[in-house]
Amino acid sequence: MLRTIAQAVDGLVVKAVKTWDMFQPGDRVLLGASGGKDSAVLAHDLAMKKAQGRLDADILAVHVRTDLSPDAFSPGLADAYRSWGLPLHTLDVPVIGRLKPGRSMNCYWCSTQRRTELIRYAMDHGYTAVVLGHHLDDVLETLFMNMLRKGELSTMPPVLRYRKYPLRVLRPLYLVEERQIEELATALGIASSTCTCGYNDHSERDRVRERVELLTRGSRAAKLNIVESLRHINAEYLP
Amino acid sequence: MLRTIAQAVDGLVVKAVKTWDMFQPGDRVLLGASGGKDSAVLAHDLAMKKAQGRLDADILAVHVRTDLSPDAFSPGLADAYRSWGLPLHTLDVPVIGRLKPGRSMNCYWCSTQRRTELIRYAMDHGYTAVVLGHHLDDVLETLFMNMLRKGELSTMPPVLRYRKYPLRVLRPLYLVEERQIEELATALGIASSTCTCGYNDHSERDRVRERVELLTRGSRAAKLNIVESLRHINAEYLP
Repeated sequence: MLRTIAQAVDGLVVKAVKTWDMFQPGDRVLLGASGGKDSAVLAHDLAMKKAQGRLDADILAVHVRTDLSPDAFSPGLADAYRSWGLPLHTLDVPVIGRLKPGRSMNCYWCSTQRRTELIRYAMDHGYTAVVLGHHLDDVLETLFMNMLRKGELSTMPPVLRYRKYPLRVLRPLYLVEERQIEELATALGIASSTCTCGYNDHSERDRVRERVELLTRGSRAAKLNIVESLRHINAEYLP
Repeated sequence: MLRTIAQAVDGLVVKAVKTWDMFQPGDRVLLGASGGKDSAVLAHDLAMKKAQGRLDADILAVHVRTDLSPDAFSPGLADAYRSWGLPLHTLDVPVIGRLKPGRSMNCYWCSTQRRTELIRYAMDHGYTAVVLGHHLDDVLETLFMNMLRKGELSTMPPVLRYRKYPLRVLRPLYLVEERQIEELATALGIASSTCTCGYNDHSERDRVRERVELLTRGSRAAKLNIVESLRHINAEYLP
């Protein structure tokens, strides 16, 4: 059971890594470890790859701990990371005081703060890649949020390169569905915590996610075809 | 009632014509008149524009009559075209015998045959533009059919130019919703016929159309934002 789902997820990670040429030999990789199941499953997959000699990279997992949700990373999950041979570093970042007057707290702002800190840490410490646990359903949700609300065709890219810094941001779970991640997390016995900040409001994202499920009828092939379509843009047949 | 919906539709046609710079002064326009409500509403709008001096073009409506559905253009609709001052020409094209052995008849094939004949007629007779009655919901339906099934980002373009011929194919109803067309057709008292060929199977397109309605929740703003997104492609944030 564990083996089957772990192999299915790994196959999709291998495909994404190849398709977008994600890793370079000798990479120094910093993994954003939120305390949730997505980054935990990614950590497990990369640790297995490294243990099996399929990934030539140093990996450090970094958890950005905020004053909004100081218990987001459970002790049990820290044990799991340890058992996979992954060192885990905690970075304390107070974000509450950063909020500008009159602005209300929200997940988008908070996650941007945490990602910025992660990338700054990576740059300061000579890392060459930051890996994040965003998955296929995140990618499609962001795509359709941007299409429906902003009138822009864009989403999270699988690889983002900085012009001025020798650092890439990678999303190896780009082709993995959330339900596969949930299945693997359960098989691994991962008890992931959820954010308890109290500002958590995913209602709009959840609505878009439901509608993406209706559009694709939950078909993985249809979801992967949407990603394919973003790589095969026929400009002559667009407005 | 008629005035309100006719003005709403006309406003969206004006916007599409401006956005994609559709017409040139002195154009010789051939309108594909299927016998349905979409091309009838387009015929009415262009005829009004011409009568009011807002469109400098000669317009001929051409109905391609096939042996599959010889009664697709009703006498009542022919009267309506006449009352709008639009000359109507009927082109007889037998398509049944063209089907290659072993291939089954379908709407896509038949409509391609009819469009090809229309374009050939336009070229042979010195027309500069062929206008077709496809609307916003057709555009989105084709977009999502291509994304979900073919893994390609493409749809019907508002303007298609031929490299070798001085002819454009235009879709002035690009920004008009089907329900607006239905409302205007009803207000105009248009009794449009439906195809009676017996091979009619729109079930797959209908399913996709339903799902596009779920994705957009039937919101015109959301539908128009999808069209906008196809004009604002942020390549750095795509896979």
